[in-house]
Amino acid sequence: MNLAGRPYNFGAGPATLPEEVLRRAAAEMLDWQGSGLGVMEMSHRGQEFGSILAHAERAVRGLLGVPDDVRILFMQGGGLGENAIVPLNLSRGGQIDVVVTGSWSQKSLQEARRYGDAQAAASNLDSGRTAVPAPSSWALRPRAAYVHICSNETIDGVEFQTLPDLAALGSPAPLVVDCSSHILSRPVDWSRVGLAFAGAQKNIGPAGLTLVFVREDLLDRALPVCPSAFNYRTVADNGSMFNTPPTFSIYIAGLVFDWIIRQGGVAEMERRAIAKAELLYGTIDGSGGFYRNPVAAANRSRMNVPFFLADPTLDQAFLDGARAVGLLQLKGHKSVGGMRASIYNAMPQGGVQALANYLQDFARRHG
Amino acid sequence: MNLAGRPYNFGAGPATLPEEVLRRAAAEMLDWQGSGLGVMEMSHRGQEFGSILAHAERAVRGLLGVPDDVRILFMQGGGLGENAIVPLNLSRGGQIDVVVTGSWSQKSLQEARRYGDAQAAASNLDSGRTAVPAPSSWALRPRAAYVHICSNETIDGVEFQTLPDLAALGSPAPLVVDCSSHILSRPVDWSRVGLAFAGAQKNIGPAGLTLVFVREDLLDRALPVCPSAFNYRTVADNGSMFNTPPTFSIYIAGLVFDWIIRQGGVAEMERRAIAKAELLYGTIDGSGGFYRNPVAAANRSRMNVPFFLADPTLDQAFLDGARAVGLLQLKGHKSVGGMRASIYNAMPQGGVQALANYLQDFARRHG
Repeated sequence: MNLAGRPYNFGAGPATLPEEVLRRAAAEMLDWQGSGLGVMEMSHRGQEFGSILAHAERAVRGLLGVPDDVRILFMQGGGLGENAIVPLNLSRGGQIDVVVTGSWSQKSLQEARRYGDAQAAASNLDSGRTAVPAPSSWALRPRAAYVHICSNETIDGVEFQTLPDLAALGSPAPLVVDCSSHILSRPVDWSRVGLAFAGAQKNIGPAGLTLVFVREDLLDRALPVCPSAFNYRTVADNGSMFNTPPTFSIYIAGLVFDWIIRQGGVAEMERRAIAKAELLYGTIDGSGGFYRNPVAAANRSRMNVPFFLADPTLDQAFLDGARAVGLLQLKGHKSVGGMRASIYNAMPQGGVQALANYLQDFARRHG
Repeated sequence: MNLAGRPYNFGAGPATLPEEVLRRAAAEMLDWQGSGLGVMEMSHRGQEFGSILAHAERAVRGLLGVPDDVRILFMQGGGLGENAIVPLNLSRGGQIDVVVTGSWSQKSLQEARRYGDAQAAASNLDSGRTAVPAPSSWALRPRAAYVHICSNETIDGVEFQTLPDLAALGSPAPLVVDCSSHILSRPVDWSRVGLAFAGAQKNIGPAGLTLVFVREDLLDRALPVCPSAFNYRTVADNGSMFNTPPTFSIYIAGLVFDWIIRQGGVAEMERRAIAKAELLYGTIDGSGGFYRNPVAAANRSRMNVPFFLADPTLDQAFLDGARAVGLLQLKGHKSVGGMRASIYNAMPQGGVQALANYLQDFARRHG
């Protein structure tokens, strides 16, 4: 429990949000800043919501240092939606290279096959999904329309520590980055990125909002079958208002961006993420084998920490005990089992300390 | 102003919500029913959100009497998204007949052309968008994959009072109904419907949620280029959880459904809608030409009432005066000008009475 008596929520997403954000949203629910309207009730074309959207865009652009030639789109459909929307917009029906580093990039590869000649340029599926294949080993095709990576695999806990430099690898293709589960936890080297997207429900806000960052020169490649509502050019030209955007979710995202700014920005989020991850992996590694995280040290995610008890018959007791002390949603993804602690930006150091204490205590009692 | 001092919001959507719903959402923002989690923070796969989704589906199924062979899907993308998602799922690349009764069905026709041979079976565009062309005049093609109508045109204020019986018109095609802006304000004759969809942001809840009601025999017709996240079969088989659904918006929708049930259900919503519409149209028609609504009496919308001042130089004074007495968002859609009062389910009779009083007062002062 934190000081306010709220449990700590380690769910992978939709995930814990800063308490200040939730309190503000509750306080403004019936009347946003004297407008007499709640945000949910505002016309998306009115000046009130216009200012909310402009503020959110400005805030995230500043936080991540997004260059002027990269447009920021507020869309719907989530990461799985983008698995189709990206190739509908960028593939031109041609070659798509995907670097498979876990469950999410594998899904992206499968979906991309609907729209072009999609292949795995590299894959860790046969080697346990525990490391990023060395970029020098990637089989990149010179004519690929784009190269797709998932820079943080939410299920497998595998994270890129730096984005690949495709030009240095001899590929002229733009890099597409699914950064849903670690956006705003570290800086982004935009010189290496053609397009990045993130479902909001981990580090940004409510489910149902997707942020897309797309270089302007990539806006005009859509296939004729691309729905207008998901055509990047159409969305960009209409300021994310071609169709009614998910207004309340954008408002919450803006409040989260403001919270990050008040905390000290992305640099501070990264500092905290490193500290939280070191504490948790240190506790797991120091458990004498009671707990185990299989990911290569260099590729361990700072956001999603899967771990396994050496004796899986203790899993339920572990989860029940955790819940009893206010540590929620620690069950691993159904496809891999075990446990997973998601420690996004909104998870305080105190929450990870409470989890580390519980890990040690449970191991002592059952070891 | 209503009794609580809140202005009345006549916006076309996102639109006013019942105050009780907003108060409940604010109260539960940090802790839903003792779970220790706000709804925005819950895993969509946890039992808490599972119960929220199941409750919302059960409630809307009951309210509208949806038959067992019609699946209810909670999706993203809004009405404009469905303009592509419907033909991606139903057209098989073949013929699509669209009955054009205003701006929205015209948009649906344009988007459908990406996916098949889409034609207007009838159109009121050349006759002022003021009436539904008589069904007996519709040029329906016997091999059409489906026939599309917009049963309430939000911009033009043209509403179908009954759904067409395609079989009686000699067409074997399923009827697709865009009912975004009047869903839950009147009963639905499901025997005439193959698929119905509604963006939530008028009579259901927040923008970013779309409800799709689809007959089971229509689930397996998707084109190969249909994105998995928007494939009705995939969404149905995964209980609207193939991708992370817009969880908070579904929760709000469920609260709105509960509110409608407490008011007396769809029959009571219809009774109120008729009373509100009669009051407002009566005031317009009784103004001696000061105000004018051009729609044929039989096709006047109970939800969206566009009207024009005989002297448009008074428009700004009208809007300013309305705002001063707490009557908001009355400006007409930019494509048609004038005024529009949207009087959805959540608009109380008192709000329409206040508007009628203002209409009379303004006319007296400026007539």
